[in-house]
Order: sequence, then C-alpha cells, then structure tokens
Amino acid sequence: MTIEHLHAVPHLTTALTGPLQQLEELLLRRQSDIEQWLRGQWLQTKAPIYTSVDLRNAGFKLAPVDTNLFPAGFNNLNPAFMPLCVQAAQSAMERYCPKACRILVVPENHTRNMFYLESLAALTKILEMAGFQVRIGSMIPELREATSVALPSGRSVLLEPLVRDGNKLRVGDFLPCFVLLNNDLSGGRPAILENVAQPVVPPLGMGWSNRLKSTHFTHYRRVAAEFAKLLEIDPWLIDPIFRKCGAVDFQEREGEECLVTNAGAVLEEITQKYREYGIDQEPFVIVKADAGTYGMNIMTVRNTDQLRELNRKQRTKMARGKEGHVVTDVIVQEGVYTFESWGEPQAVAEPVVYMIDHFVVGGFYRVHPDRGRDENLNAPGMTFEALAFEALAFEESCTQPDRSRAPDARPNRFYAYGVIARLALVAAARELQDISPGD
Amino acid sequence: MTIEHLHAVPHLTTALTGPLQQLEELLLRRQSDIEQWLRGQWLQTKAPIYTSVDLRNAGFKLAPVDTNLFPAGFNNLNPAFMPLCVQAAQSAMERYCPKACRILVVPENHTRNMFYLESLAALTKILEMAGFQVRIGSMIPELREATSVALPSGRSVLLEPLVRDGNKLRVGDFLPCFVLLNNDLSGGRPAILENVAQPVVPPLGMGWSNRLKSTHFTHYRRVAAEFAKLLEIDPWLIDPIFRKCGAVDFQEREGEECLVTNAGAVLEEITQKYREYGIDQEPFVIVKADAGTYGMNIMTVRNTDQLRELNRKQRTKMARGKEGHVVTDVIVQEGVYTFESWGEPQAVAEPVVYMIDHFVVGGFYRVHPDRGRDENLNAPGMTFEALAFEALAFEESCTQPDRSRAPDARPNRFYAYGVIARLALVAAARELQDISPGD
Repeated sequence: MTIEHLHAVPHLTTALTGPLQQLEELLLRRQSDIEQWLRGQWLQTKAPIYTSVDLRNAGFKLAPVDTNLFPAGFNNLNPAFMPLCVQAAQSAMERYCPKACRILVVPENHTRNMFYLESLAALTKILEMAGFQVRIGSMIPELREATSVALPSGRSVLLEPLVRDGNKLRVGDFLPCFVLLNNDLSGGRPAILENVAQPVVPPLGMGWSNRLKSTHFTHYRRVAAEFAKLLEIDPWLIDPIFRKCGAVDFQEREGEECLVTNAGAVLEEITQKYREYGIDQEPFVIVKADAGTYGMNIMTVRNTDQLRELNRKQRTKMARGKEGHVVTDVIVQEGVYTFESWGEPQAVAEPVVYMIDHFVVGGFYRVHPDRGRDENLNAPGMTFEALAFEALAFEESCTQPDRSRAPDARPNRFYAYGVIARLALVAAARELQDISPGD
Repeated sequence: MTIEHLHAVPHLTTALTGPLQQLEELLLRRQSDIEQWLRGQWLQTKAPIYTSVDLRNAGFKLAPVDTNLFPAGFNNLNPAFMPLCVQAAQSAMERYCPKACRILVVPENHTRNMFYLESLAALTKILEMAGFQVRIGSMIPELREATSVALPSGRSVLLEPLVRDGNKLRVGDFLPCFVLLNNDLSGGRPAILENVAQPVVPPLGMGWSNRLKSTHFTHYRRVAAEFAKLLEIDPWLIDPIFRKCGAVDFQEREGEECLVTNAGAVLEEITQKYREYGIDQEPFVIVKADAGTYGMNIMTVRNTDQLRELNRKQRTKMARGKEGHVVTDVIVQEGVYTFESWGEPQAVAEPVVYMIDHFVVGGFYRVHPDRGRDENLNAPGMTFEALAFEALAFEESCTQPDRSRAPDARPNRFYAYGVIARLALVAAARELQDISPGD
C-alpha cells in the first residue's frame, strides 16, 4: 500500500552554489558519525522539552537564526506526522515526570490570536494522544471562569483561570503533576509561577525575561565549532556571526556608537567571508532585541549609515518589544539570505524545524510573498490578527535521508535542516543546563 | 496541507457484539489511566528491543495469541510510518548502546524467502535512517563471501559471512558495537553466538530454543489480571485460556492423554464463558508447539475425538517443527475467532501489531482468503516461497484515538489493538527480566 499526496507538491527552488551542496552532501555521507555525535551530546546534556528553530538557507550557508523554547506553531506541522509528535511527547514525559498523568499547560495571554490558539489546541491534542489529562491554566487577569474559544479549524480550546493554592497550581479541581510552560515570559516572570511545588518546564529562567539570544548564540558558536571540527568544515558555513551591545536606548539615542561599531565589524567579517567563498551578494546584518520574540524590533541593516539615520518611527518601533518591555540589550547578527522560494510569483521561504525532546518531529516553511530574501520572515510588526506569514508544512520527515538521491532532494534537504536545528538544540540544552544544572 | 490516500480504503468489517464494543469504549475512556499504568510498567521492566504481537479480534473478545521477539514483517508496515520506526529505534538504541554506531544484524538462514529478506532490508533501512552503520552477518554455512540478493521491491540485501575472532563477532573488517538478533533460534543456540563480548539483543535465551509460549502466556495471564483489575473487567475478555502438556510425541502417540484431557478442560472453560456471555459460537482450541514459530505444528480442535483420531499425515506434521526440531512440549490454547474481514468475497483478517522498544510503530492485517475464522492465519505449513498471506498495512497509527468517533472507528480500534499488544509486550518484558535480570 502506498500513500500519495493529492495536493500539488510545493515546488521549492534553491539557488545552490558550491559550499552548501557540498555541506548537504557531507551531512548525508557522515550521517552515522553525526547521529553518534548527537547521541553523545544528549548523554551529557538533556534537551529542552520542546524547541523550534528558525533556519536560513542561503545556498552557500545554512544556519539557525532564532531558537524558540516556547514553540507556538504546532498547528503548522503536517498532520501526517502527529504520531511522531505523540511518540516523542511520550518519550519526553517519561523523563520529566514518569508517573504524571495530569498536565497543566500555561499559555500566552492571547485570546484573539487564532494562530496561537490553534497551536495551543494542537499541542494539547498531542499531549492527550500521548495519554495525559491536559487542562489549560491561563494567566489572563480578566478571565474569571472557564471559557471555551471556538477556533477556525473547528477545534476549540478551554481556557481556565490559573489558581494558586499555597505553592501548588491548579485549575478548578484539577491538580496537575506537571506544568508545561508555553508562555515565553516576555512580559516578565509572573509571581504566580514562582516557587511552585510542581515541576514547571521549561523553567522560568528560560523565558525571555531572563534569556538572551546572545547567550544562546555564544553556546551555539561553540557547538558549531565542535561539529565543524568533526566534519572538518569552516564553522561559518553553519554559524551566523554576531556581536552584542548592552545599554542601548533607541529613543534617547544612547548606545548608538556601540551599535554602529559592531554592525560595521560584523559587516566587515561577512564581506571577508563572501570574498573568501566568491559570493557575489551584498552583506547585511539583522539588528534585534537580545531578549524577546515574535519578531518585533527587528531591522535589516546593509550599512552603518542606516543606523545613524533612523527616523522617529523606526526608533519607536525598535525601542519597545512585546508587552512594552524597554529594549536595552541588542544583538547584531549576520544576515543570512534565504534562497528558498515557492510558487509563482516566487515567494521567499524560511524553514522552521520543530523538536520535542531531542527528536525532530516536523517543520514548515514560513512563506512570505511580500518580503525580500534579506528580511526576517517572522517580523510582522503588526497586530496578531493579521496573517503574518503562510505556513507550508514539510511533506516528509527529517529522518529519512536517501543517499541514492541528490543532496538537495527533499528528504535529504530536510535531513540537513534537522541536523542544523539539532545543533541549535544542543546549544539550548547547554543554556538550560547552566540555569538548572540538576535538570 | 492535508494528506489523502489515493488508494481505496480497505473496508474492514467486524461483527461487534456487546462486550468488545464495551471494551473498546472503555479503553478509549480510560486512555490516560491506561497510559499511566503502562508507563509504570516500563519503569519497572524494560521492553524487549522489538516485538510483534498477533491479535485475534472476536468481536466479543480481543486477545494476543502469539508474541514474536524476532519480528520478520517490517516490510509489511505502512511506509508512511517509517519515521515512527526510526524515532523509536533511536530511542531504543540510546538505552541499549548509547555510544554504538555499528550494528550487526544476525538474520535467519533464509536465502530464498523473499518475504523474510524484504523484512530484513526494511529493518536495516530503519536502523540506517536512525543513524547507524548496519551490516548483516549471516550464519548460513555455505555462504563463503559477501553476497548481494536482489529483492522484488528493487531493494537488495548484502549477506556477509559472520566471523568470530576470539569472543568478538565481525563481518569483513566491520567490528560492530552491538549485535541485533533477528533469528529466533528455532534450530538451537549457535555456538558462534555464545559468550560474545558485544551485547547480543534480544539475548539468546529469548530464542525458541529456550523460550516457551506457555511461559509467555503465564506472564500474560498475570498482566491481564492486573490490567483487568485497573479497568474492572473480566480478564477473560483479553486473555486466552491455555494449558500445557510436556513430553508429547505425536509419532509415538505418547502424551496423548494429557492433550485430550487439557483440550477437553479448555473447551469446557470456553463453553462456560460463552454461556456466561450468551455467545452463540462453537468453542475451539489451538494445539501448537510450546516452542516454535512460523505457524507450523498448529491444529484447530473442536472436540477431543479429533485428537484421538489423528492420521499419519497429521501426526507427521505436528511432530516436527521448523528446522527439524522434535516437538515435546505442547500448548493447548483457547481459539479466538477473528471476526474482522476484508474485501469481496470476505477474507479473514488478523491484526499484527509491531513495537520497537515500548512504542507501537505500526501493524498490518494478515489477510487470508482461504482460511476460516477459527484457523491460524500464520499457518502455511508449506514452503516459504509460497505466499502464505496477504499483508494489509494499518493506514493509521495506533496512537491517535479520537473520542469524537465511534469506538470501532479505525483510529480507535487501532488504539485498542495497540493497548492489548502492549499488554503482551509487558508479559514479554517480564520473561526477559527473568532470564537477564540486569538488562
């Protein structure tokens, strides 16, 4: 019995130049060494419970640009791979809480963002199919009673007010054994979640109120260097250059010199690398908040004059992150072109890989017809009600490379994505270990 | 994006009567308790590395009738669930041998059984996709050099002569870290595999040269009783009655009285249960070798006179198992009707569930147009070249129950199969623990 797709297979086009095809070919050829190396990593350092990684595939370079520890796109995964999510969730929960059967999910405080709520419904379903009782404990202050929200998919989610009794969290009479955090804490660490008796996973310290992208990418730099040594490649092919600036205030124009200096330095490094590899592209950097998510406060910079000439609107946009947090730490990261595209007219596509525990369970392309190859595709800078991007689920798993086909055949490309995403996962695991060594 | 099947969905018909529909409904309703109970079992007792379980679904009863620790039907699984196999294999190997990257598979000594070799190729591929280097070390005495066998699927397997150096196994210059046994040792324990330095999994003691079905079903009886207590049901609904006879020699007509007595006792017990549940079917028992596989030496018995009146041909058939082993231990097991059928004219179908570690990774229906509802469908009694049965892969996973649908809707039925198969897996895990407590 074979399974065929009735729907048209999306045609993804990548301008492949030398180094990446070589890289993809190398990842395929060294698969068993790579998997062994990764197994060794998980023996030393436990993976976060779930993670999504945004990758950029420039043809000549394949690298992670963001690693999210509170993934919010489970609804974008291919339904055909739901069993993979279920199995990985079962495996993860055995480790975290073998005897638990009641899970409380603490979500973002969104009530009208249907994309987020669809993801929450999908996540809940994965956990239920894995054999758990699941309820959702919301921290929305106005939520007085259990409220069911109907979703466009026909599903619904039941949001219940999160209650704290002493040091225990509950909703209604449901006392969970385990609290799964799906709120990135951009707005800070809520008192209700502090010092809770039940395990809270990921721990509060992994939220954006504490975590810095620069810490992640410092870990990633080491991981990439170790991995590059294994494969005998230039780590730059998988690692975006970055520098950070503390104490930046866009409104008050403080810290501007640091930004200009660092952006200039990163642009110069990229220029040298492009020259070394004969890449005929214009270097660019991405300037973004060091703590934060949802793609706000993100700017594409091609030369340092742009930073000196920010207008009032641009300053205002950069100055405030999600939920009004004042930006002070800024990361200047090498911009990685995305040369994958889809459809006619060609729309820019960016792969996002999903992992539960250390298993790659799927992914999707973020497709954005209105954006350029050098723009962040997760940067709506608009209300959550607007469709920021179109999600195109990976049709095949990331664990079925086929050496009889070309390195850029889909199963092989997805395998490459899964490998690079897991390198970012190793970095996240090390971040986690630093803040909760006992975990 | 959704995935549709171009192929016709097989129409499986089950005559559902009261108890099973109630059982299926109960399994659905108590899913989180069941999964928690199973998680508790795996904490106490590790599952075998891979297992397949033959189930019989009588409508009023759902029970395992055979548990195979050396599964040989990986080629029959739905290719869509290959990622599930890969992920489960990765998880299993982390436990067995976290640092291994070279696996040696020791298969059955078949060279012309294309069904077996297709399974071997599929198993090898799963392990390769899981990131291991895999070679096949054959014990075929005549195999002098590495020999590639082309398969009907277009795949091929490379059989290499198994070599022992001191206490280490190898093929060519490939020194494995781990030996995966896919030979059920019906022909005895080969000296070449004894006291090997590398881990041999499953251990030799789990082969048919040592293992007895009656030991398995004694464990299963306890497991079923514990599980039935959890769900407050009659364990008979999931457990086939059995008795065993030692020292039976069909040729010499020795032990016949034991067989007649035990078959009579089992038939009487079934009759009482059928009366209790108002089941209007004729009871039958299955008489088979207590050690052995491949469905040889299997006989359907409806009354004890049949056992007294065996003719010469029947005696010869019962007397010798696979590879000429003389049958001495015999198990008399309650026959469980299979009331699932497929196609026009309706062919009898028997579910087979596959597990890697403690994860259900798929299954298939064994469909046999020429057999009755009371016959064993894995009983060719003929050369392996002949197609013994048709395999019809499960279209959906066993981990996606859907409470919004009827208990006998496919995802729910498959979930029920996965639960009962895992009960047999718990029994197998206890067998394994008895012979290798340290594992």
